[in-house]
Amino acid sequence: MGGDHAPQEAVRGAIDAAARGVDVVLVGDEGRLRAILAGCGAELPVIHAPEAIGMGEEVAAAVREKRHSSISVAAHLVAEGEAAGLVSAGSTGATLAAATIIMGRLPGVTRPALASVFPVGHPTVVLDVGANLEVRPEQLVQFGVMGAAFAQIYLGVGEPAVGLLNIGEESGKGRSLEKEAYALLAAAPLRFVGNVEGRDLGRGKADVFVTDGFTGNILLKGAEGMGAAVGRLVLDALNEDDPALRAALPAVLPRVLAVRERFDPDTYGGAHLLGVRGIAVVAHGSASRVAVANALVLAAEGASRGLVARLEAGLGRG
Amino acid sequence: MGGDHAPQEAVRGAIDAAARGVDVVLVGDEGRLRAILAGCGAELPVIHAPEAIGMGEEVAAAVREKRHSSISVAAHLVAEGEAAGLVSAGSTGATLAAATIIMGRLPGVTRPALASVFPVGHPTVVLDVGANLEVRPEQLVQFGVMGAAFAQIYLGVGEPAVGLLNIGEESGKGRSLEKEAYALLAAAPLRFVGNVEGRDLGRGKADVFVTDGFTGNILLKGAEGMGAAVGRLVLDALNEDDPALRAALPAVLPRVLAVRERFDPDTYGGAHLLGVRGIAVVAHGSASRVAVANALVLAAEGASRGLVARLEAGLGRG
Repeated sequence: MGGDHAPQEAVRGAIDAAARGVDVVLVGDEGRLRAILAGCGAELPVIHAPEAIGMGEEVAAAVREKRHSSISVAAHLVAEGEAAGLVSAGSTGATLAAATIIMGRLPGVTRPALASVFPVGHPTVVLDVGANLEVRPEQLVQFGVMGAAFAQIYLGVGEPAVGLLNIGEESGKGRSLEKEAYALLAAAPLRFVGNVEGRDLGRGKADVFVTDGFTGNILLKGAEGMGAAVGRLVLDALNEDDPALRAALPAVLPRVLAVRERFDPDTYGGAHLLGVRGIAVVAHGSASRVAVANALVLAAEGASRGLVARLEAGLGRG
Repeated sequence: MGGDHAPQEAVRGAIDAAARGVDVVLVGDEGRLRAILAGCGAELPVIHAPEAIGMGEEVAAAVREKRHSSISVAAHLVAEGEAAGLVSAGSTGATLAAATIIMGRLPGVTRPALASVFPVGHPTVVLDVGANLEVRPEQLVQFGVMGAAFAQIYLGVGEPAVGLLNIGEESGKGRSLEKEAYALLAAAPLRFVGNVEGRDLGRGKADVFVTDGFTGNILLKGAEGMGAAVGRLVLDALNEDDPALRAALPAVLPRVLAVRERFDPDTYGGAHLLGVRGIAVVAHGSASRVAVANALVLAAEGASRGLVARLEAGLGRG
């Protein structure tokens, strides 16, 4: 029920994900959801959740009090083992609160973190991308451990290289947060490769970039904005009035569009919330049908590949 | 004398800038500089500065004690009115310390800030991009005032729109820094348009993005990395073995390369340090000949367009 285009795009994305083999249950206002399903000529199981958490509400209190909001009901389904995971395009704060309070945290985790895969060039896991705007140095170590377990599963890397996002390569760089985290990461049971910079994204210097949720969010959205801007510039440049260019377009355009699709945020769909007892994927608030479907596939993959067990094992090594 | 490729690339860039009409004076080890000039068959005035500030030194102390380091001598030339501005590819910390201590700050400025122009799409001034890793809310207001004056001169906008870089559009978003700065910016004598996100870069939502130097640095380098990665992907896609593609390349390749050049960091050259009494431009540590030349042109433009007077006027309105 959450998100700018809810519930229409969520339902349509769920139908697409079901066609791709994901076993989807819709949670929300049953009447509205069934009407959209009927309009699409599709059938999916629906669990009624009549309440909604408003944008202005204090989320932790709202999650506790509104047990029949769609996000609370979905989190209970996961907590009770009736669903393998949940996906929401609603308020990140509400999803984070519901997953943490209702599903609970894994041992050793003080703050769950949102992990996203940056898909251009060498795929890179970035966390946190928005769950915790301010963190302590030891929390960045937890993010490193969880990010490495996530990269093992999603990137297929045996021993992922973990880098600390910073404004320079040298070890003394950064705020006190980065200086203290550097020392802790160097002593932690993971393959720490030192500081990485924004420009190292996609270059393979590390498989995992750890940072606070404010910085990670800015980095990812900035890269997203740049990708879109460059894509527009290239397409504009190919659209000039020149006969030679027009003759070339049939060969060139499909390839340029394929590149653009690779870094379209819709293609990836969402970010996994790591550190809770179960799968939780946060989709963009503006998630389209395509993004919702991809977020559901992402959640299903996390469940079938044993993401939570891998995270627990990684956290237990410390 | 500072920078990864100094002094070779600095001298060659200076020669190129001189050919473009910039009145350049080289400051550094006279013997080495004259030898490079002679090797290039060029002549430029040289002012001898035998000392160097090492990477590990505490910069404020080093600037005060080493009066004959190249950055100190250059800052004295500006302070005494013998040069209109300085450019350095050396340590940002040393340049910042020399400019602040030797040239002095403008009235109303507690922390000078580095301003960079993001050149893709709608050109956008971003500050701070690395001078102050942690700031107070009222310093973000100073950055907004200085960024607006800078945008008037460099973007030619009459009353520039100023946005606060944040993780969402709504006014309650962000860390306590952003929440407090939002209220102060809304009350300040500038056209504040609210929060802007990383993905708004180049989209014209604001002419000026204000943020702390850590976040700004990560944003700009992340966008730079993404631009380079997308550029590589497009060129790779056009390099596939396909006769139709090969036939199309002569028409297409020059246009794609022209797009890539627009967002190549070398094209812009450097960032202006705003809030000091004079022009100071910080170039990338890895600045090439092209980047050094463009940084010198950028500094000369700032001087000829009256940047410092415009900043003083803007700061005086508060």
